[in-house]
Amino acid sequence: MSEPVRIGLLGRGTVGGAVCDLLEDRADAIREAAGRPMELAGVLTTSQGDFDSILADSDLIVELMGGTDDARRYVLAALEAGKPVVTANKQLLAQHGDELFAAAEASGVEIRFEAAVAGVVPIIRTVTEAFGSVPFTRVFGIVNGTTNFILSEMAETGASYDDVLARAQELGYAEADPTEDVNGADAAAKMAILARLAFHAPVTLDQVSFEGIESVQPDDLSYAKELGLSLKLLGVAEKLEGGIAVRVFPCFLYPGHPLAPIGGPFNAVTLEGPEITEVTLSGPGAGGPQTAAAVIGDLISIVAGNRVPRRPEGPIEILSDVESSFYLHLEVADRPGVLAEVAKSLSDAGISVKSVVQKGIGDDARLVMVVHRCPEKEFMGVVDEIADLDYMRSRPRFIRVIEEESV
Amino acid sequence: MSEPVRIGLLGRGTVGGAVCDLLEDRADAIREAAGRPMELAGVLTTSQGDFDSILADSDLIVELMGGTDDARRYVLAALEAGKPVVTANKQLLAQHGDELFAAAEASGVEIRFEAAVAGVVPIIRTVTEAFGSVPFTRVFGIVNGTTNFILSEMAETGASYDDVLARAQELGYAEADPTEDVNGADAAAKMAILARLAFHAPVTLDQVSFEGIESVQPDDLSYAKELGLSLKLLGVAEKLEGGIAVRVFPCFLYPGHPLAPIGGPFNAVTLEGPEITEVTLSGPGAGGPQTAAAVIGDLISIVAGNRVPRRPEGPIEILSDVESSFYLHLEVADRPGVLAEVAKSLSDAGISVKSVVQKGIGDDARLVMVVHRCPEKEFMGVVDEIADLDYMRSRPRFIRVIEEESV
Repeated sequence: MSEPVRIGLLGRGTVGGAVCDLLEDRADAIREAAGRPMELAGVLTTSQGDFDSILADSDLIVELMGGTDDARRYVLAALEAGKPVVTANKQLLAQHGDELFAAAEASGVEIRFEAAVAGVVPIIRTVTEAFGSVPFTRVFGIVNGTTNFILSEMAETGASYDDVLARAQELGYAEADPTEDVNGADAAAKMAILARLAFHAPVTLDQVSFEGIESVQPDDLSYAKELGLSLKLLGVAEKLEGGIAVRVFPCFLYPGHPLAPIGGPFNAVTLEGPEITEVTLSGPGAGGPQTAAAVIGDLISIVAGNRVPRRPEGPIEILSDVESSFYLHLEVADRPGVLAEVAKSLSDAGISVKSVVQKGIGDDARLVMVVHRCPEKEFMGVVDEIADLDYMRSRPRFIRVIEEESV
Repeated sequence: MSEPVRIGLLGRGTVGGAVCDLLEDRADAIREAAGRPMELAGVLTTSQGDFDSILADSDLIVELMGGTDDARRYVLAALEAGKPVVTANKQLLAQHGDELFAAAEASGVEIRFEAAVAGVVPIIRTVTEAFGSVPFTRVFGIVNGTTNFILSEMAETGASYDDVLARAQELGYAEADPTEDVNGADAAAKMAILARLAFHAPVTLDQVSFEGIESVQPDDLSYAKELGLSLKLLGVAEKLEGGIAVRVFPCFLYPGHPLAPIGGPFNAVTLEGPEITEVTLSGPGAGGPQTAAAVIGDLISIVAGNRVPRRPEGPIEILSDVESSFYLHLEVADRPGVLAEVAKSLSDAGISVKSVVQKGIGDDARLVMVVHRCPEKEFMGVVDEIADLDYMRSRPRFIRVIEEESV
């Protein structure tokens, strides 16, 4: 195995700490995916480390310190020294994107920033790589988890904005000072980045108009429910006659909209264009391990470049004896004791019934039930047994069920 | 600009034709994204072309002919000649993946196949690149659009399987011989590919158990509705104690499940793991231009490799005068003629009301309405006008609405 890639880490907060953990815990998988092992060459925090010596010792810089002054200076220095950069700093990119991309291009090195928009959801590489030549008509989504959590909770509980914000702060979904999240500024920075990439336009933060959710009333949400709408803080970048518009605003969505079901602190982005129709990506927009996973993905892509796909690691057992929950449909003779007999067959095999509906009378009588997760073999055995009983009017039918809490 | 990349195209059916169109229509964007122009070196069809001479003239082979005999021979020959391959052939990969990946590795060239699973939805590059070192616990999804269309239609209309299949064939969502789609075999091939990549396991097609949707009854769907469930044909690859299980089966999903809202011919795949929580990608799983866009994305990635992100192409107008539909909330004095006056103000500005709800009495009276898409400036003007009217008890509130048919 070749020489390790030496990584200089700037900032060791929640995400920086999670990156350190992953570099250690997942070292084998990372080496396998990248083709080279990775190791920390140095860490810069407010209390330790010296940037110049870390830069000199590193092949690659990971910027997770936040802010736009030191971060800008360090990232530019790294790029100018011909060292690739991975950053999760949306403000840095939204405010100084032109300068940073020009520096990267001049040195012929990469700057990657998947974690800057929608956390671990791979929207940046989808826009720039998978759909690198695709003409987009619109890119829009839920790019702030704090506000989505607040709006989901308000809709569900009917509580006021202030009460739900307090709850979000307790749960860690909102910062002590939530201003940038709730007034739309955070989403605006992310939309500036997405609009730049999707429309190849030098969009800067001050060109993105934004409104927040501070003045949303429980009333609005209850009327919306009557009208069949759900409320989201949306970022929208769209091509219009004569140019593009990039905006952030609270917005009602009709029920079938791909972003309507995205609840809680999740993020989601929909890409539209004549060739791709409509592609939507969703997932956690924040969280230490999740954001760190996006950073590691960027590191691997920089180091691996155009590697051929890995071959399988070796034999793995392919299992067929698995567990499932089932829906079971029985057409039965309409006479006393049938349900009791079916229930006994299931119970003798250790299978418990979750819900049952008895339907119809006479020749149309049927039992429809859902049973809890059980070994499939056991279930099939009971179905065969039940099929032979004399009150069955046809072969039992069954379909698997994926329940809320399990497979 | 450097020398063109010469592409040898095998097969010119629906997708092959769409690839030819895109190479021509989108030539500038493709050259920009890839860093080099691309041109067709030759096309092999059943009636024209000779593989050996096309291979000799090409830098890269795109296999869209289907089948597993000639396709396997040609793809192996290309890889052995050190020429990268892009293919959309799921059966080829599911049945001969080991051999093809070994050949690619031996020659140090890429084989890419985004279009083989879930069409333009970038699931392959997400699993292998964005999440290249991420440990997955489960990868599951709707990977066959024909069956998803049939099940969506059955649920919506209550029609029988046979009737809906006939309709799907008319609409082009099902083939004349739909066997491979409806019996789960097509989904099984895609899950063999996904399981291989996600779990680094040499999964072959015969290790994937599959069931189809042929025996689903309208009954099952109507009972499911009562139980709050929706029916999907699901592919599931999951890590279990002692190994992995890879299966395809019809399955009921609870309402909040990320795959539950995926309707019609769309595909969607959810990736689960401790670091990423749950990431879902959805979009059109078939279609000529869509599948061709995935092929072009693969071509660009092979040619571009680790290029630095493109800089913006130049100034683009950032527009602020846009159109929206609005929800408008007015707290009004409870007296005759108020609705008429508000309606007149809107109508004078050319804004038409879509729906209106009048609520409460006395000091609690309010009007809640949704207006059709109109220029935002016009709407804001009317809101200012209405705010000044003497029966208004507080400042009007408004929120944008995204309707079914428009932004």
